[in-house]
Amino acid sequence: MNQAPIEFYFDFVSPYGYFGSTQIEAIAARHGRVVDWRPVLIGVTVLKIMGMKPLTETPLKKDYLRHDAPRMASLLGVPFRFHDRKGGNSLAASRAYLWLKARDAVLAKRFAQDIYRRLWVEGGDITAAQSVAEVAAPLGIDPKELLAAIETPQAKEALKVAVDTAVSKGVFGVPYFIVDGEPIWGSDRLWMLEHWLQRGSWGAGQDFRPSPQ
Amino acid sequence: MNQAPIEFYFDFVSPYGYFGSTQIEAIAARHGRVVDWRPVLIGVTVLKIMGMKPLTETPLKKDYLRHDAPRMASLLGVPFRFHDRKGGNSLAASRAYLWLKARDAVLAKRFAQDIYRRLWVEGGDITAAQSVAEVAAPLGIDPKELLAAIETPQAKEALKVAVDTAVSKGVFGVPYFIVDGEPIWGSDRLWMLEHWLQRGSWGAGQDFRPSPQ
Repeated sequence: MNQAPIEFYFDFVSPYGYFGSTQIEAIAARHGRVVDWRPVLIGVTVLKIMGMKPLTETPLKKDYLRHDAPRMASLLGVPFRFHDRKGGNSLAASRAYLWLKARDAVLAKRFAQDIYRRLWVEGGDITAAQSVAEVAAPLGIDPKELLAAIETPQAKEALKVAVDTAVSKGVFGVPYFIVDGEPIWGSDRLWMLEHWLQRGSWGAGQDFRPSPQ
Repeated sequence: MNQAPIEFYFDFVSPYGYFGSTQIEAIAARHGRVVDWRPVLIGVTVLKIMGMKPLTETPLKKDYLRHDAPRMASLLGVPFRFHDRKGGNSLAASRAYLWLKARDAVLAKRFAQDIYRRLWVEGGDITAAQSVAEVAAPLGIDPKELLAAIETPQAKEALKVAVDTAVSKGVFGVPYFIVDGEPIWGSDRLWMLEHWLQRGSWGAGQDFRPSPQ
């Protein structure tokens, strides 16, 4: 079996990124694979490079999102609620994630999951550096150390490189998975990811049909 | 069982619309439902109302599409090839579809499937009215009658009403399904449509996992 990691691209501001984050480890584990969590900023990919508006400001699609995210949470069996925060971003949290990842990738994933939970389950802030430090503290991460680390030129550069690398690989939205070179976009395509992990090809199946319960 | 039709919104210019068209009748039949095929113009919904560019002109996403459509065809087990036609549209074909639908809805679906096949399997033209008439002829539809019918104010108005109605229901892309009031967008969400048809709720399942073969 190919043991190359599944690349999982995420942005904390996306509810669909959150949904992906709740499933990817279990999916990978079922197929003996590991996951490399990689932050991306959809504000850069979607807004600047693609010239699109945020989903929440796009006519018609924003209404679909309001209806869709709760039912997707229900389908996946995960907690979820909309927050009414405006203008948030993942800069500080993503820099903190990369700083942690360089020290302890497993701890960094737990931190990422906790950031997601704070925003998409508890409705708390994740934009302010102080909020990010608060999420990290229960994991044994010193708030002062984190706050200093994410303001260094190295931390800023590391995130820039991460985003540039993602874009160079074609990543535009989240969740976005790359497995054995195959790009798979969307929390509605987990079936496709599983198909690849199971078969390693795109031969005809009936994968889009619900499994018997 | 609720016998309300599944609304299936399609645009001939979309490869994903084509994929939806190859599956929806079988899915509906498995659950004792019928399908109401409704044309929409994504040039109106996506471009004008949402302010987005066509998928084929959107950086990053256009590359994803080139990779994704052939594998989706493979997964669904349907023939497919990209064409290199530029600037095509579904105006004449959609007017013809609605004109036929008012006479014979079953025949109109066959016509729609044949139009899709001409563009996405054979790579032929579907934009010129003459091309549309050519597709209709083997179905016993008089080309002259069709060519006259789609130029009437009534035919133009019927399509305008169809698009306005779709937009008023929130339809923005294709394939787009509305079943019992639930909107479902995308050929990658056929599993979600089946989930609803099977259970009538969004309770937690593992529907995104491949079915055992």
